[in-house]
Amino acid sequence: MLIEDRLKELRELINRKVPSGITVSNVEFEGPELVIYTDDPKVFADQADLIRVLARDLRKRIVVRPNVLEDPEKAYDEITRIVPENGGISDIFFDPDTGEVLIEAEKPGVVIGKNGSTLRDITKSIGWSPKVVRTPPIESSTVKQIRQYLRASRDERKEFLRMSGRRIHRDIIAKDQWVRVTTLGCCREVGRAAFLLSTPESRILIDCGEKPGATNGATPFLGVPEIQPLTNLDAVVLTHAHLDHCALVPLLFRYGFNGPIYSTPPTRDLSSMLQLDYLEVIRKEDRPAPYSSNEVKQYVKNSITLNYGSVTDIAPDIKLTFHNAGHILGSAIAHFHVGDGLYNIAFTGDFNYSKSRLFNPATANFPRLEAIFMESTYGAAHDMTPSRKDAEIKLYEVIKRTIERGGKVIIPAFAVGRSQEVMLALEEGIRKGDLPAIKIFLDGMIKEATAIHTTYPEYLNSDLRNQIFREGLNPFLSECFEQVDSSDKREAVINGDPSVIITTSGMMNGGPVMEYLHNLAADERNTLVFVGYQADGTLGRRIQKGWREIPIGTKGSITINLEVTTVEGFSGHSDRRQLMSFIGKIHPKPERIFCIHGEESKTLDLASSIYKKFHIQTHSPMNLETYRMV
Amino acid sequence: MLIEDRLKELRELINRKVPSGITVSNVEFEGPELVIYTDDPKVFADQADLIRVLARDLRKRIVVRPNVLEDPEKAYDEITRIVPENGGISDIFFDPDTGEVLIEAEKPGVVIGKNGSTLRDITKSIGWSPKVVRTPPIESSTVKQIRQYLRASRDERKEFLRMSGRRIHRDIIAKDQWVRVTTLGCCREVGRAAFLLSTPESRILIDCGEKPGATNGATPFLGVPEIQPLTNLDAVVLTHAHLDHCALVPLLFRYGFNGPIYSTPPTRDLSSMLQLDYLEVIRKEDRPAPYSSNEVKQYVKNSITLNYGSVTDIAPDIKLTFHNAGHILGSAIAHFHVGDGLYNIAFTGDFNYSKSRLFNPATANFPRLEAIFMESTYGAAHDMTPSRKDAEIKLYEVIKRTIERGGKVIIPAFAVGRSQEVMLALEEGIRKGDLPAIKIFLDGMIKEATAIHTTYPEYLNSDLRNQIFREGLNPFLSECFEQVDSSDKREAVINGDPSVIITTSGMMNGGPVMEYLHNLAADERNTLVFVGYQADGTLGRRIQKGWREIPIGTKGSITINLEVTTVEGFSGHSDRRQLMSFIGKIHPKPERIFCIHGEESKTLDLASSIYKKFHIQTHSPMNLETYRMV
Ligand SMILES: [Zn+2]
Ligand SMILES: [Zn+2]
Ligand SMILES: [Zn+2]
Ligand SMILES: [Zn+2]
Ligand SMILES: [Zn+2]
Repeated sequence: MLIEDRLKELRELINRKVPSGITVSNVEFEGPELVIYTDDPKVFADQADLIRVLARDLRKRIVVRPNVLEDPEKAYDEITRIVPENGGISDIFFDPDTGEVLIEAEKPGVVIGKNGSTLRDITKSIGWSPKVVRTPPIESSTVKQIRQYLRASRDERKEFLRMSGRRIHRDIIAKDQWVRVTTLGCCREVGRAAFLLSTPESRILIDCGEKPGATNGATPFLGVPEIQPLTNLDAVVLTHAHLDHCALVPLLFRYGFNGPIYSTPPTRDLSSMLQLDYLEVIRKEDRPAPYSSNEVKQYVKNSITLNYGSVTDIAPDIKLTFHNAGHILGSAIAHFHVGDGLYNIAFTGDFNYSKSRLFNPATANFPRLEAIFMESTYGAAHDMTPSRKDAEIKLYEVIKRTIERGGKVIIPAFAVGRSQEVMLALEEGIRKGDLPAIKIFLDGMIKEATAIHTTYPEYLNSDLRNQIFREGLNPFLSECFEQVDSSDKREAVINGDPSVIITTSGMMNGGPVMEYLHNLAADERNTLVFVGYQADGTLGRRIQKGWREIPIGTKGSITINLEVTTVEGFSGHSDRRQLMSFIGKIHPKPERIFCIHGEESKTLDLASSIYKKFHIQTHSPMNLETYRMV
Repeated sequence: MLIEDRLKELRELINRKVPSGITVSNVEFEGPELVIYTDDPKVFADQADLIRVLARDLRKRIVVRPNVLEDPEKAYDEITRIVPENGGISDIFFDPDTGEVLIEAEKPGVVIGKNGSTLRDITKSIGWSPKVVRTPPIESSTVKQIRQYLRASRDERKEFLRMSGRRIHRDIIAKDQWVRVTTLGCCREVGRAAFLLSTPESRILIDCGEKPGATNGATPFLGVPEIQPLTNLDAVVLTHAHLDHCALVPLLFRYGFNGPIYSTPPTRDLSSMLQLDYLEVIRKEDRPAPYSSNEVKQYVKNSITLNYGSVTDIAPDIKLTFHNAGHILGSAIAHFHVGDGLYNIAFTGDFNYSKSRLFNPATANFPRLEAIFMESTYGAAHDMTPSRKDAEIKLYEVIKRTIERGGKVIIPAFAVGRSQEVMLALEEGIRKGDLPAIKIFLDGMIKEATAIHTTYPEYLNSDLRNQIFREGLNPFLSECFEQVDSSDKREAVINGDPSVIITTSGMMNGGPVMEYLHNLAADERNTLVFVGYQADGTLGRRIQKGWREIPIGTKGSITINLEVTTVEGFSGHSDRRQLMSFIGKIHPKPERIFCIHGEESKTLDLASSIYKKFHIQTHSPMNLETYRMV
């Protein structure tokens, strides 16, 4: 059926279902949503259950928009009149193209009202569809820029959503039924994650990352015929914002892709931040950049964000649902339901099956599941990490003895994930008196990454959310943290009192950590604490291995006198024990498990251990293979 | 390097290597061969070793052609003067475009002379390159038509060979190194054989067959991106002429392919014969034909034939060698050498690892071998067939008792392979007195297929060749055989003396066998003997299962009173014991074995049995998978 006929049919169907007094003038696909345009948004909003019933019956995500919109100024006054004072509205943006009004408030719950009653009042009164976002306690320039950019490119974006919507809802024409996965990277290695899920009807790319530290073979195999031409790709699905998963998504636009990229909202924001930083690092090293900031913008423009649990059509025969992966902010296990009950397959991305200070453990429950592609970073039998508790006790001890002898603690850390975990551990240590009341300085992109964390508190675990909302105690806002945002300030920190400095880069390949090392390495009272994996070839790894004389360009060299120590246990990954226990608990039991994202020996070890223990068919694929699922 | 530069370099190199007195005016790639054009073909021919040395040093197949050719009429006289009378020249064809003269003779050995001396004399005397073919004792209309067609389209073919030659010898540009095989059919099933061998540089399709009896899923998966566009395919390699391997090769031309198809010469001839018959069957059943006889012609025009053991460049990084498969005339195991010692992989096609009346057992020795894709038709533990000897004894007994009671024996058989095996067994039975001196009537395409067999005696096993050449006893020419070539003749056979009738189709789906059944089924003195596998859904299978009342269109029905019996053991496939013994003997031992071309349970059984017994990694792939070899 032509898509126009389909829409006409849907309009008639909806008109039959809505009570008299409501006129549906038009329906349109916009991305994965079915948008209903009406002259009577107020009457529509009165029928609390109507949208839910339509969504259920049509098996579509439904959005209602008015044909005629209230004048923004009048609407502004109406909103502030309807929403109680304690909602703390900090800003209101109108988007005439989508008919949406974005309300930024300190207490979104107040703006929404009980069961959405206040929101419905707003809709009835002004016609615009209200969307509520929380006023972030720390302003993120990334989030701000993304919102500005999306507003500025709204015409293009509207057209993009309309086109994607029509593409997603096209008729199924293929007669064959099969589901295949092609491995384009990240098999028997860590890095360049890229998996192609294909059916006779659709092609979905899951992740598109770089391989850190690789001199050749740094990109996924995007040149093979399976994925060519990229214009035929229905969608890209991004599990999380780490560069080994997201770095090369913008490159796809250079190769002709122009479809949607699905991720959670935090993943979109963190990814674009890290992609721009990735370009900056390449620029500083005088290497040729695979893409420019223009493609990062395009990535943002083509992003369609989904929250955990939202079941979404992304192709005629594929539904995507994100589930919490517990790894970093917004990290997701991507679950695909293919066909009408034909097959279910999940890609874990990176995941943590234990609870951390920031996140709940990864989901192990799925409505259905036949196969899973699972990371194996710590997949070998001996890959056991200490508990988070023990790691924190060790970290406290190192800090205490350093402070006591009048030294400073340098903690190199990735901006996203590990930094925030360490921040929370230190904040609690100080608050509960396990650590002295020292200052914790944050340098590099850590503050910006933390700001994005505070923009999406609903992605943090319930304890932390309760602490923030019920107890009004946002640990990220603690007075113990202080941002370093100038060289003067950095100099002051270096020459100041004993303190802790959390700073990028995490593997000591450039970034502000170099400045601290340069100035603090000679003094044996100071301590350098590694909390994350140091890859081969990085300066961090060399120092860990015992190098004590570090040549630094033409400046001569740095002599390492300070204490060097490693605290394991802050990893965002499941260790071997957790990987096995995840498979023990996963429900339903999949028929096949593919161990990926790990060194060869680890994926092989994990695959054979799972097979032996659980009698599930396992594979340790190589890159460039295609597995038939059904 | 540009191909023109490469050719220039080769010309200079060759000019340095040839003795003074020989001028190489030009060199050109024509298909896989490097053709040297010279003004001095006679001097060239004098240097017996020169071509061999050039071929070895340049690692190319070398052909020498004169610039100026003797007038054909004079050349004709010269040839008949040089070749001794007893050579028995029956025809001479000149092809001015290739500079070749085809000499058809009863004793090619005489035309060739000792160590090729007579041939060299011819070359020296006339300039034309002589090629010798045997005068077939039974004239094949297929072979005649193919030769005529190739002569008629020689301009196109010359250009085609030049283009293919340049494509084969293009520079290698890819930096990655990998070898992959994609399964496009014939996995966990019998039929629609099609495997794609690919490297970063090249793509080769091995076989392209139909699935007999399939109502849907009758063609290989040619629509998947791995093989698209077909214009990017470097070559098609055909293992043998059975329709489950060759039927859809002409279809590739409809889809844009225009490259070379490599096979042995008998495979080319048998394939085109069976493809035309395949179209005829489809026409009679009023089904839409996938292609027309035009594409069969194109298939012939684009065919490049190779004999067993000839190592041939078919892509910049791939060399192909055919080895005897022992299955049917010209059947081959296709061995691929990839890169400069990177990887070796063989596809068995169908193969027989025991000696039959017609063929030597399949080759189990390869220069190198890392992986093999192996047929598993009789791969299950219980798939043991009786010895050929026992099968023949049983067949003799059935025939004797039928003849004694005054009946006729109907043997439905495939035109290619099984018919000739049965013919040879019966001829020997009559000659040695184990059978009475009855007539054996051949109906359907059997005579034409037999004619093609006699065209290529070098593809028969040494015993049979010796019998034909040393003992002058060609069993196919025995007086006991009589062709049925009209309905009158058929009626005479039906009403005649007790006899044996070997006739198509082999599974009693149409063909002349129906006429015999119709007229002979009611008489209980007659016998119907099955010597081949009867697929589900065929009339043969139904009768085998015990049906005794066969509805025949509007004509009413046939009552089956005649004796029905099955004689197993004439199969052209290895049975389970032979498959296992092939792997036991194969040299060198491959690292991986892929069990294909068999029902699911058989491929699984064989794969696990090989693994258990030989500790070699085995797979039972599904269709639409890609395996990474290296
Ligand atoms: Zn990660
Ligand atoms: Zn990762
Ligand atoms: Zn065959
Ligand atoms: Zn076959
Ligand atoms: Zn496997």
